[in-house]
Amino acid sequence: MKYQHNFNPTISDEDIFAEIVKEREEIGYYNLVHQDTSIFKEYAATVKQKNIIVIGIGGSTLGTYAIYKFLKYSKNLTKKLYFLETTDPIDIKSKVKNIDLDDTLFIVISKSGTTIETVSIFKYIHSLVKCDKHNTLVVTESDSKLNEYAKANEIMNFEIPKNVGGRFSVFSAVGLLPLAIVGIDIDELLGGAKEVYNSFFSKGETYERVVKKARFFVEYKNSFNINVVFSYSSRLEGFNKWYIQLWGESLGKVDINSTRQGLTPIGIIGPIDQHSFLQLIVEGRRDKTVTVIKVNYFDNDLKIPQVKLEGLGELDYLDNIEFSSLINKQADATIESINNLHDIPCDVITIDSINEKSFASLMYEYELLTSVCAKFMYIDAYNQPGVEAGKIILKQKLKIVNK
Amino acid sequence: MKYQHNFNPTISDEDIFAEIVKEREEIGYYNLVHQDTSIFKEYAATVKQKNIIVIGIGGSTLGTYAIYKFLKYSKNLTKKLYFLETTDPIDIKSKVKNIDLDDTLFIVISKSGTTIETVSIFKYIHSLVKCDKHNTLVVTESDSKLNEYAKANEIMNFEIPKNVGGRFSVFSAVGLLPLAIVGIDIDELLGGAKEVYNSFFSKGETYERVVKKARFFVEYKNSFNINVVFSYSSRLEGFNKWYIQLWGESLGKVDINSTRQGLTPIGIIGPIDQHSFLQLIVEGRRDKTVTVIKVNYFDNDLKIPQVKLEGLGELDYLDNIEFSSLINKQADATIESINNLHDIPCDVITIDSINEKSFASLMYEYELLTSVCAKFMYIDAYNQPGVEAGKIILKQKLKIVNK
Repeated sequence: MKYQHNFNPTISDEDIFAEIVKEREEIGYYNLVHQDTSIFKEYAATVKQKNIIVIGIGGSTLGTYAIYKFLKYSKNLTKKLYFLETTDPIDIKSKVKNIDLDDTLFIVISKSGTTIETVSIFKYIHSLVKCDKHNTLVVTESDSKLNEYAKANEIMNFEIPKNVGGRFSVFSAVGLLPLAIVGIDIDELLGGAKEVYNSFFSKGETYERVVKKARFFVEYKNSFNINVVFSYSSRLEGFNKWYIQLWGESLGKVDINSTRQGLTPIGIIGPIDQHSFLQLIVEGRRDKTVTVIKVNYFDNDLKIPQVKLEGLGELDYLDNIEFSSLINKQADATIESINNLHDIPCDVITIDSINEKSFASLMYEYELLTSVCAKFMYIDAYNQPGVEAGKIILKQKLKIVNK
Repeated sequence: MKYQHNFNPTISDEDIFAEIVKEREEIGYYNLVHQDTSIFKEYAATVKQKNIIVIGIGGSTLGTYAIYKFLKYSKNLTKKLYFLETTDPIDIKSKVKNIDLDDTLFIVISKSGTTIETVSIFKYIHSLVKCDKHNTLVVTESDSKLNEYAKANEIMNFEIPKNVGGRFSVFSAVGLLPLAIVGIDIDELLGGAKEVYNSFFSKGETYERVVKKARFFVEYKNSFNINVVFSYSSRLEGFNKWYIQLWGESLGKVDINSTRQGLTPIGIIGPIDQHSFLQLIVEGRRDKTVTVIKVNYFDNDLKIPQVKLEGLGELDYLDNIEFSSLINKQADATIESINNLHDIPCDVITIDSINEKSFASLMYEYELLTSVCAKFMYIDAYNQPGVEAGKIILKQKLKIVNK
């Protein structure tokens, strides 16, 4: 008798851990927590310009935007950060119009160095203001064409390591450099990420939680093929976008048996989307898991004042409630109403407060979760072959135009 | 012999049309195209304030925001429009801080008149600035508590008809009043909607297209349970959000056989999400239809200038291309790469240009499409029973706090 089979059974937690430990040797994002940040902090201390414009797209901006959006109103930042990322002409024009470009530092970020959107916008900026070593930085791979340009013009390059993928690059120069310049504490960021790293690789709480959650997602992926992140703070809008890229582009893949994989990420904001998407979650098809993200401490005592409005007396129970308490009670009510249905898998993440450490630990845990899900699915989290065909077609279209 | 069955077979196009014609007698949004707009225009002409703040959430803001976001950089608007819609305290504080409240008109919009978020924020505004008939309007149902408040204070109310649901209310006072005040041509808006109305109800092109598309969505809903709207302009970000509410809250329902229905709406923006979600569309599970929305004419001649960047010569084919041409070629390349796969249903909508008429016709067609899908699914597009449980739980939590 002889049996042969090529099935991929669910991997054990032990094997997953071993694979991730092995992967850590090759895939660069894991070890970003050990970086020496002095190069970023030293440079940041020399920046005189009041405005910082990041020119980049996708992985070159989404993580930085997520952190900046989360923290900007809660920190006393002295500089303003902007992002030029789309080729929409109205968007470019309206953004540039309101920024004093003579008082601006431009950070051109492209891992490959030849991203069409980034180079197009940089060329446009070039036509508006002289770009040189005094007002321009690049962040790219060491041997990219963009770095050739930088070297030829004595412009400084902060390197993106080859083995750090764009959507996993927020804790490299891609995120740390602009964030350090505007006044975010990047050591606190890395500290938050490192706590999660340590807890995971010492098989602590993070390991238990991440592996359990990933296993659930993958084992039930044919029933629940959508994960809704329901974030109860407008400050998490950038996180939602970053998560959608991380999850969608890492997990939407063909596996080793040529089977299409993927969990569809959706990001919504509470309480706004209680008046919208929640109806679909509650009464629609049972194809969604829900992850509610709350902020425990807003460090903001804004209150609903005791104001009498004729006719609206029935709502006076709102008086003297803090808005931070109201939004968290709205989150709790949503969670309770979902849990009462007993057939929608729902988990809750509570961010301690609006600071670097808490937020970075959330992001790093999501990166780990993505890597672990990919292992369970027998896919490569770090490539993106599906977007190449469109790029080739675009190049043909553009070259024909300019012939 | 006797046979009895309760199956719901697919309805014929004729029967769908008859049902929609019948529904038009009861459901208010259809006939908004016939409105006399002079009441809005006359009031708008009297407004002195430079800032307009809409206080509302969900259906009270999303449609207005979509139109404003689409048009604001392409029209010479003399007033600025803001939205206070969330209970996030950091969001409220940061928005209010930058607006001169003494030069602001407040429009409080709530269909029921007792929306918790809206009344809470209005109470807060009350504590910052005197709100009276000189700087405050309400938009609500005629017999709501909010209108009682308005009457008691001689504040003007622009009525939301009872039979116009929040998410279908953009062409009622909810949208037309604030938009007229900031200088949007509301007759052009209604004109665009009316063209679609006429074409549909005379069984013209719109009817053919809408019924065919809705039939496809419903017949294939078990294979393709997600519809991705891929909008190639940052100006369509508001449209995406509005679409998500319209689609999610109208179609996420239990049908007459107690079967859960719903098509999950996702909104993404090109070219940004080419670097993100596109990978999942191309290589992930075949559970998505894709609707690409393009803008034909941006009325903006921003160009990629002929700038030589050392090392980046291989990208010189970009020189002299207009950004509007680039973004549309990016859309075309995405469409072609998706169509080349032959197993992802994809349709394309091209908006003529950045003006009121084109955009309103798109929105009205989406409203019709939603109504027709609901008929095919044997569900009520206009209620939202699924969000009520959470509201009751929240009230209990808040009343306990304030006991």
